[in-house]
Amino acid sequence: MKTIELKPPYLIFVGDAVEESYAKTGFGMIEWRRELCKGQIRLPGCQVDLGIPSLTLDQAVAEKVGSLLIGTAAVGGRIPESWLDTLVEFVEKGIDIVAGVHTRLNDIPRLRAAADQSGARLIDVRVPPEDIAVGTGRKRSGRRLLTVGTDCALGKKYTALALEKDMQAQNMKADFCASGQTGIMIAGKGIPIDAVVADFISGAAEQLSPDNAEDHWDVVEGQGSLFHPGYSAVSLGLLIGSQPDAFVVCHKAGRHHIMGWPDFEVPTIEDVIERTINIGRQVNREIRCVGVSVNTSSLSEDMYGLYLDDLSAKTGLPCVDPLRDGTRKIVNRLLMEFPNIGRNE
Amino acid sequence: MKTIELKPPYLIFVGDAVEESYAKTGFGMIEWRRELCKGQIRLPGCQVDLGIPSLTLDQAVAEKVGSLLIGTAAVGGRIPESWLDTLVEFVEKGIDIVAGVHTRLNDIPRLRAAADQSGARLIDVRVPPEDIAVGTGRKRSGRRLLTVGTDCALGKKYTALALEKDMQAQNMKADFCASGQTGIMIAGKGIPIDAVVADFISGAAEQLSPDNAEDHWDVVEGQGSLFHPGYSAVSLGLLIGSQPDAFVVCHKAGRHHIMGWPDFEVPTIEDVIERTINIGRQVNREIRCVGVSVNTSSLSEDMYGLYLDDLSAKTGLPCVDPLRDGTRKIVNRLLMEFPNIGRNE
Repeated sequence: MKTIELKPPYLIFVGDAVEESYAKTGFGMIEWRRELCKGQIRLPGCQVDLGIPSLTLDQAVAEKVGSLLIGTAAVGGRIPESWLDTLVEFVEKGIDIVAGVHTRLNDIPRLRAAADQSGARLIDVRVPPEDIAVGTGRKRSGRRLLTVGTDCALGKKYTALALEKDMQAQNMKADFCASGQTGIMIAGKGIPIDAVVADFISGAAEQLSPDNAEDHWDVVEGQGSLFHPGYSAVSLGLLIGSQPDAFVVCHKAGRHHIMGWPDFEVPTIEDVIERTINIGRQVNREIRCVGVSVNTSSLSEDMYGLYLDDLSAKTGLPCVDPLRDGTRKIVNRLLMEFPNIGRNE
Repeated sequence: MKTIELKPPYLIFVGDAVEESYAKTGFGMIEWRRELCKGQIRLPGCQVDLGIPSLTLDQAVAEKVGSLLIGTAAVGGRIPESWLDTLVEFVEKGIDIVAGVHTRLNDIPRLRAAADQSGARLIDVRVPPEDIAVGTGRKRSGRRLLTVGTDCALGKKYTALALEKDMQAQNMKADFCASGQTGIMIAGKGIPIDAVVADFISGAAEQLSPDNAEDHWDVVEGQGSLFHPGYSAVSLGLLIGSQPDAFVVCHKAGRHHIMGWPDFEVPTIEDVIERTINIGRQVNREIRCVGVSVNTSSLSEDMYGLYLDDLSAKTGLPCVDPLRDGTRKIVNRLLMEFPNIGRNE
């Protein structure tokens, strides 16, 4: 198995969540993969509603649901005892359980026993596949775009998903490639790159975006930042293994220090562009930046446009807030930079 | 346990090796840590001799040997059946076994059972300790020198060990810090950094060279190369976590392509210096290159001096072959660059 692969369609387990912020994964599934979500499961006391049908076990079986996705986090990141009866019922019907929680599903005896019986899989999206090779650096067919960042947690996954959507809307062949746990649930496949053993990081990134049609774009979800005191090695391995033709820098307006590392300043967008090109050239001479994606949630409706215009003037690049404007401007730049292979005829 | 820690003194197990090249670890122990090696164990048929006394089990016990180090590799990198009787005898006497082979010692039932009984440890130097935290980027006390490379396997460990020796000879406080399996056996401690999970690489490097006296130098064994298509993430994490004040570039004369990656050219020494400084500055503004260490085994006695002189003129740095000349010239440069903290009074 070269990447994790989930079996659709899905049922989203919301559990007994009382606040929407706990069910971010569930909402992400609805936002980006509504068509694959047959329904939700809410336990008594649940105060979160994803706005899709609630299904019973029998209805799920009738709908041929392949996987039950844990779309919520319990306090402490564990699987509470109160969820187990329901999860076991689904496993007994041969439906896979997919989760990205601290407790490994396979370490829960009741789930393990039921899965051994029915053949259902218990998939921890935090656990990388076993067959990961050392990176070869071999040039692969097809094109790749990577989202990179000035820091963690500022929209690299969201930007990649928005680009996939806007590229497909332009009739381009594009697929989101997930490198983190929530992304893997949304994409239905991927590798949690931060959990791979050091020697195999760029190899994992190569497996994540294998050979493809010449006019196909893999839109690779970035991780961390090349300038991060804790996670830069992950970002570097992902850059080297993805060997991107194009990249988009993601940033959060108003964030001046690395989140959780108050002694480290966030690098400038120009610094990120320069270093990404310098390093990326080792594996792809054509690498270039095609845009900047900014989370401007800290700026008012009046201010954010000025901020982006100013940034655009300074960098010479299309600058967008993907949540407010989408990424269409960046897609246009991509089509301009790669005129022959961007769009299907 | 923050790093692997071995219990000296040692007995070196040479097994039934028939060629010296299989016993490189054993010879390395003798070269760098002769004073810790009480003797060797050679099985019938062994044609390799480390030149130190052969001890019996009883003599080893009388000498208070702490660990039996597997100083040879069998074909296939496993522990052959023919070694087991001997290894088990030592374990039964409470002597640790230390190895860096493919088979995990703990997966061999006879060894495991004997160790459970006696309390001896079975230490795989390829397995990192469990307590590794994410890198903090916090500036630590004391000084650090890192060996970096234009490629793998060209003398980063050897150079670091030669520097340790030459620095100590200059009355400097210096300790070799091992980041790979053979280095860990020699140093008696360390972390196999390439086996650490991606998110924790720079954190592991921080644990490898913790706070120390202001006039103390950790000489950190480098891994891979920032320009390597497979292993650059390891090199980057090690650079960020070591936050070196000084570094030495290691190179092999006549190697033009990355070993095993024929499509990738070896970077120039100047490129390695530039990138190491650019990235290293994130965690240490004072970082500088203090020398170049070249494996000139491909050059004749007449030629190598000319090669090093030429390189020295081009880079403005002391350039040595550590095997031929030692690293004294580099240590002198280090003392010049850090005049107040280099030497004990």
